[in-house]
Amino acid sequence: MSIVDPISQIFLRLERRNQPMHVGGLQLFSIPDNAPADYVHQLVDRARAQNAIQPPFDKRLKYRLGQPFWRADHDFDMEYHVRHLALPEPGAIRDLLALVSMLHAALLDRARPLWEVYVIEGVTDNRFAIYTKFHHSMMDGISAMRVLRRFLSIDPGREHFRVPWQLPPQAKTRPRPWSAGVAMLQSSYRQAAALPAAARSLYDAWYDARHDPDFTGPAEAPACILNRPVSGSRRFAAQGYSMTRIRGVADAFGATVNDVVLALCSSALRRYLIDQDALPRAPLIAMLPISLHDTEDATGNRVALIYANLATDIADPAERLAAIKRSVDYWKRRYKRMSAEQIMAVVATMTAPAGLNLLSGLAPSRQSFNVVISNVPGPENTLYFGDAEMLGMYPMSIVLDGQALNISLVSYRDMLEFGLMACRRALPSMQNLLKYLGDALDELEQTAGLPATS
Amino acid sequence: MSIVDPISQIFLRLERRNQPMHVGGLQLFSIPDNAPADYVHQLVDRARAQNAIQPPFDKRLKYRLGQPFWRADHDFDMEYHVRHLALPEPGAIRDLLALVSMLHAALLDRARPLWEVYVIEGVTDNRFAIYTKFHHSMMDGISAMRVLRRFLSIDPGREHFRVPWQLPPQAKTRPRPWSAGVAMLQSSYRQAAALPAAARSLYDAWYDARHDPDFTGPAEAPACILNRPVSGSRRFAAQGYSMTRIRGVADAFGATVNDVVLALCSSALRRYLIDQDALPRAPLIAMLPISLHDTEDATGNRVALIYANLATDIADPAERLAAIKRSVDYWKRRYKRMSAEQIMAVVATMTAPAGLNLLSGLAPSRQSFNVVISNVPGPENTLYFGDAEMLGMYPMSIVLDGQALNISLVSYRDMLEFGLMACRRALPSMQNLLKYLGDALDELEQTAGLPATS
Repeated sequence: MSIVDPISQIFLRLERRNQPMHVGGLQLFSIPDNAPADYVHQLVDRARAQNAIQPPFDKRLKYRLGQPFWRADHDFDMEYHVRHLALPEPGAIRDLLALVSMLHAALLDRARPLWEVYVIEGVTDNRFAIYTKFHHSMMDGISAMRVLRRFLSIDPGREHFRVPWQLPPQAKTRPRPWSAGVAMLQSSYRQAAALPAAARSLYDAWYDARHDPDFTGPAEAPACILNRPVSGSRRFAAQGYSMTRIRGVADAFGATVNDVVLALCSSALRRYLIDQDALPRAPLIAMLPISLHDTEDATGNRVALIYANLATDIADPAERLAAIKRSVDYWKRRYKRMSAEQIMAVVATMTAPAGLNLLSGLAPSRQSFNVVISNVPGPENTLYFGDAEMLGMYPMSIVLDGQALNISLVSYRDMLEFGLMACRRALPSMQNLLKYLGDALDELEQTAGLPATS
Repeated sequence: MSIVDPISQIFLRLERRNQPMHVGGLQLFSIPDNAPADYVHQLVDRARAQNAIQPPFDKRLKYRLGQPFWRADHDFDMEYHVRHLALPEPGAIRDLLALVSMLHAALLDRARPLWEVYVIEGVTDNRFAIYTKFHHSMMDGISAMRVLRRFLSIDPGREHFRVPWQLPPQAKTRPRPWSAGVAMLQSSYRQAAALPAAARSLYDAWYDARHDPDFTGPAEAPACILNRPVSGSRRFAAQGYSMTRIRGVADAFGATVNDVVLALCSSALRRYLIDQDALPRAPLIAMLPISLHDTEDATGNRVALIYANLATDIADPAERLAAIKRSVDYWKRRYKRMSAEQIMAVVATMTAPAGLNLLSGLAPSRQSFNVVISNVPGPENTLYFGDAEMLGMYPMSIVLDGQALNISLVSYRDMLEFGLMACRRALPSMQNLLKYLGDALDELEQTAGLPATS
């Protein structure tokens, strides 16, 4: 029995019926040629037979004197945690997304370990899918994506069959950026004066920086329908876009892949909000975790938060990309001169207003940011679940009151996979964003004079 | 906009993440011969096209100054309310029950009208199913069963196609027994002295009656695993048993169908609890709403609550049935001498301790009853949804902290359809009760010397 750490407790306390605090992922697989007709059924049986459950998958919440602890579940019920579902004929991706939207809206059972896996058969073109759900108190979104990658193998074959709950626990090597902020602001929540002096001096420096024209900070974001209270229903939309094409655009404009991703999101959001007659006059602000390393470094912890100006007030795609790039570069320059500790202090300071609003449940008097966009580097090689090739993986994150849309990305092979999670009621027809993302990529290619590839 | 009545408010307030307060039903249909391959898909499309939504199906909750109101949903989202799902191959009933168990465990979205309909294709033997979910604040279990019958037709044919949300609202002709009790105890909850003098004198009479050896009242029930706190996960088990066979047993023992139903439940529960090494020494007590009319009378309101001794301490099936019958007959005799108003007053008084416990969320110091068993008369004729014959319908009710099992029954044609809803964690392998119910029927037939029919 171990105590639930304070950050995880916050995620438990933030949970509401309209605001489940679990993250997840959708993975799409190909059924091998010549597989038996009951291939998926056999796979589910085989997965359920893996009953040597590793921490944290075996732990459930147990309250003692109001204090939550993690304790082994002695009534572990494999059939409950591993479900077998199917799509109606003909198994369109649209139906798959509708199903996982519904599943993502349901709260986890707090009497059990806080995870569920759904194996979904009947996806058109001889495919099946796996939707996995972890409570944020058990695992954050980045760790969830990592687990969904670790159980797969680069070698196809039945002998490589593993399931997430069999994986030996991994040491935490990468701090959770937002969580780190929350941890620091926990003390500040109780007493603002308790903020470390270092963080306060950084805060002052940051405050001065507002005279820099490229600076974008919290409390700059306009009021927007993206920031409505959320209902209990969700819409998940997912699609992959060619990394080669995105890199081509980035090179043409002297920008990074991340800059182009933001430009695509900006263009799609701008168009969606115009459809809804709801585009704010001021530009939208995105909050994004960003790696300060050029390459992925498993032991690196130089992860920071950026408030990026999405420049949704600019109609011209090239100008918009340039404005986004300047906004991101401002933070990169600033962070490059700092130590990891200083960066974490800045992040904690910046997230304080947003975090306080989340914790206190009050509507922010001024919106800190309009949308979270997070981009996690993923596997470059083809991965297999047993002998089933993974065709795509899409992150599924959390929406909150005041944050009705979350955009999460993960790369896989040559694809950049977008997972858009939204409140289905606050943001009607949100799935149109997928088409608009694709159109935005076409548009940037045309603007750059690149040959049409789509 | 109309105010939410006090009883419905109680059901809203009683709801917890581990204790959803919705009722529902599962209906099984046959796909007509020569139907097109996309028959169910067409049916879903046709259902969704019925968008002239009648009250209360168009109403959602809206809070003003902490007071809930019903208000028309101006963003009604038909695709959200009417879902299309499927079973994995080969579509076993076991998988259907697992799916609806999962669906019944999920809370409704309070931002929308509090109902959902799931059309489930791919049930083995060319069948499909419909699972419907209504919040108890919108509709009680009896009304839900009635709605699920009213939208069907006794004539097959596409021209008879109707959906529940098209039905014109019906005047309330039948009071809700438990709800009526709750309504009366609402005032008593605030101030015990406010109970009508009539009810109090009845209470005294009832108290005296404890000297009658056949009397079973509240606060007689033993501690039992049926009365554990519940988790957020559910197990639904459903099966029909031949009404002809049950009537045969009733006639052989000079008992009613209802007496035999209780004897079957008693036998099954006794055996299940012995399996779990958890049979209390004292007999289990069931709470059941009972009609005091010999025939179903649509305008009758002579419905009362009975606390029946299930005689689970008696091993002999014939003796057990006799003890159950005596316990039920006690209440029938008593109620026969009373006016409807007097009966309602007694019911309110009897349910007060249980109701107070539910309302206050406190564990009862003494258990009032162990299990709710409710039996609703259903249609005798074959019913059709368009041209699809209904093969069976099964009520799906609520479990609560301290009431981890609910047994609801509805008759259809020659079948008595049992719907058993349980907390999946408090009552492991609860589905064994279905087999035990069947075995109990065999046993009573043998005891009565009837020819074996199963």
